[in-house]
Amino acid sequence: MRMEGEVTRSIWLEPDGWGVGIFDQRRLPWAVERLSLRSTEQAFHAIADMATRGAPLIGAVGAYGLALALREDGGDGALEAAFTRLASARPTAVNLNWALQRVRDVVAPLPPGERAAVAYAAAARICDEDVAVNRAIGEAGLPLIRELAERKGGGPVNILTHCNAGWLATVDWGTATAPIYLAHDAGIAVHIWVDETRPRNQGALTAFELAEHGVPHSLIVDNAGGLLMQQGEVDMVIVGTDRVTANGDVCNKIGTYLKALAARAHGIPFYVALPSSTYDPATPDGASVPIEERSADEVRFVVGPDDRGLPGRVAVTRSPARNPAFDITPAELVTAYITEQGLIAGAVGLERSFIR
Amino acid sequence: MRMEGEVTRSIWLEPDGWGVGIFDQRRLPWAVERLSLRSTEQAFHAIADMATRGAPLIGAVGAYGLALALREDGGDGALEAAFTRLASARPTAVNLNWALQRVRDVVAPLPPGERAAVAYAAAARICDEDVAVNRAIGEAGLPLIRELAERKGGGPVNILTHCNAGWLATVDWGTATAPIYLAHDAGIAVHIWVDETRPRNQGALTAFELAEHGVPHSLIVDNAGGLLMQQGEVDMVIVGTDRVTANGDVCNKIGTYLKALAARAHGIPFYVALPSSTYDPATPDGASVPIEERSADEVRFVVGPDDRGLPGRVAVTRSPARNPAFDITPAELVTAYITEQGLIAGAVGLERSFIR
Repeated sequence: MRMEGEVTRSIWLEPDGWGVGIFDQRRLPWAVERLSLRSTEQAFHAIADMATRGAPLIGAVGAYGLALALREDGGDGALEAAFTRLASARPTAVNLNWALQRVRDVVAPLPPGERAAVAYAAAARICDEDVAVNRAIGEAGLPLIRELAERKGGGPVNILTHCNAGWLATVDWGTATAPIYLAHDAGIAVHIWVDETRPRNQGALTAFELAEHGVPHSLIVDNAGGLLMQQGEVDMVIVGTDRVTANGDVCNKIGTYLKALAARAHGIPFYVALPSSTYDPATPDGASVPIEERSADEVRFVVGPDDRGLPGRVAVTRSPARNPAFDITPAELVTAYITEQGLIAGAVGLERSFIR
Repeated sequence: MRMEGEVTRSIWLEPDGWGVGIFDQRRLPWAVERLSLRSTEQAFHAIADMATRGAPLIGAVGAYGLALALREDGGDGALEAAFTRLASARPTAVNLNWALQRVRDVVAPLPPGERAAVAYAAAARICDEDVAVNRAIGEAGLPLIRELAERKGGGPVNILTHCNAGWLATVDWGTATAPIYLAHDAGIAVHIWVDETRPRNQGALTAFELAEHGVPHSLIVDNAGGLLMQQGEVDMVIVGTDRVTANGDVCNKIGTYLKALAARAHGIPFYVALPSSTYDPATPDGASVPIEERSADEVRFVVGPDDRGLPGRVAVTRSPARNPAFDITPAELVTAYITEQGLIAGAVGLERSFIR
């Protein structure tokens, strides 16, 4: 999507043809800084120090990290050492391990001298596939927005979203944002209500993305969505998800569930955008998902740039705080799942489409 | 209630018998500072500069402001001048005007030399009546908490509240907090979930109040209530209100409605605490209430003490923001209204009890 006026992905090959460029996501949305990864160690640190984030993107950085290693030394020892090192950068990131294995599997049978080029090609394919999946999610969701626009006679379609399921967490397009970007690019008038998403305020990142691409939007506090629905100012809700369970329950950022309940109360369609890889048939339902409890200090303090633009922090309270990070939206509140295989109406559809 | 270990009201006569003490609410919850009002001008500034807040408390400060004026000069000219000056401090505060008129009505027929003492007595009566009303709200709500405690076999009753309807906005007890303080003082184990209440974080004030009085509580982001209800961690919700319309719709701080919907989805009782003076039979329903839109900067920035304890401010976004301040909870989501005249189940009851 667009960043500083230029169309870009969130990961790219540098002009020299071997360095790997990414945005330093620790600095976003307040500063746009690019990192150039030129060694496995640099790729490792980009992942471990969270300069890069989002499951698909971490996988892509890992894949290129393996290619960078093989460029220096194509031998079996170097391959195994780089694999182990990169996999340890975020041990719980399933996508990272998957991407590393995929590159290793294609290069391992080859002579050392041929491995680097094939690894670069495999990493590029991982990126292209992620873009294709997200674009397909966008195309599945686009008709929903187009139809609302036609029903409204061209007035802007007001779409509410929660947290950040945007392109900066993927290679391009994002998941929840993919239909939005496609609609905007197709000339359909949209306006996005962006939930702030306390405590970590990922809505600020979504707002930044939308601003850079030129999509009209407003940031709102998480409390405001109910009133906006009461006032007829929300036409649809689209959110991403961290996991959809076998029965279609949706685990997503804390607060998603409150918006799903409000959407239902007002007859507003509530959509969940996901790649099929996020469907988890091994977990029966939302009640089986352990909810991560994060540090109370995320609630007790708010971080951001101060009035001089320097990293700042202000206190909200001295009281104890609780900080559950996710909630569960029951399948019955989901109008449809927007996936790369099209719109899917219910859990039975998910199973049919995604389990082979 | 308790503040710094001492039982106090939010407004008091100084030991000299004529100065009027209040807390500087601009400094709460971060510092407890008291102001001593010794002239009409000081009372005017306490109200106009928002050192004091909350409709009942503003009325009490205004009433004492008139007494302070009459202490210096009991004549008709001084009475009218002080009335006009004090009424102009917050022109839209209905309660301020009501309290000033009430004091003027009792002193106007008297000889100038007797007016000051009677004005002090009238101001004290206004305070005592507010305390009695709030305490009666507490007594109406107490059995609800006691019953839940018995049903839970003594385990703490988990009560969720939104915004600040606490004692610091009244003379004592508060409205939503009155049943909570009474229950705690009666030895019933309670634990309060305090919504942060973005964008102005009034939950921090509620948390502070509860901490000072020794009531167990946790601050949570506004997003968290839905999950806590899913997990069975909320036994009841009690909120205050700015206005209840003829049909029982509840206008309260933005975000209240989302909690009411979630409470309904989980069969959790949702109570609204109010003095009868907050019932507005002239407004037919919530749809007729104009919703105040406040400055977008309240959303775009968060204020609070920085790490050195100095007044700080951090940015959330550079994007445009929208900031509606209230929402409407439809009467059908309200389990009962907790009032000084007892529990009232529906709008018909409100009308019967409050309109004479």
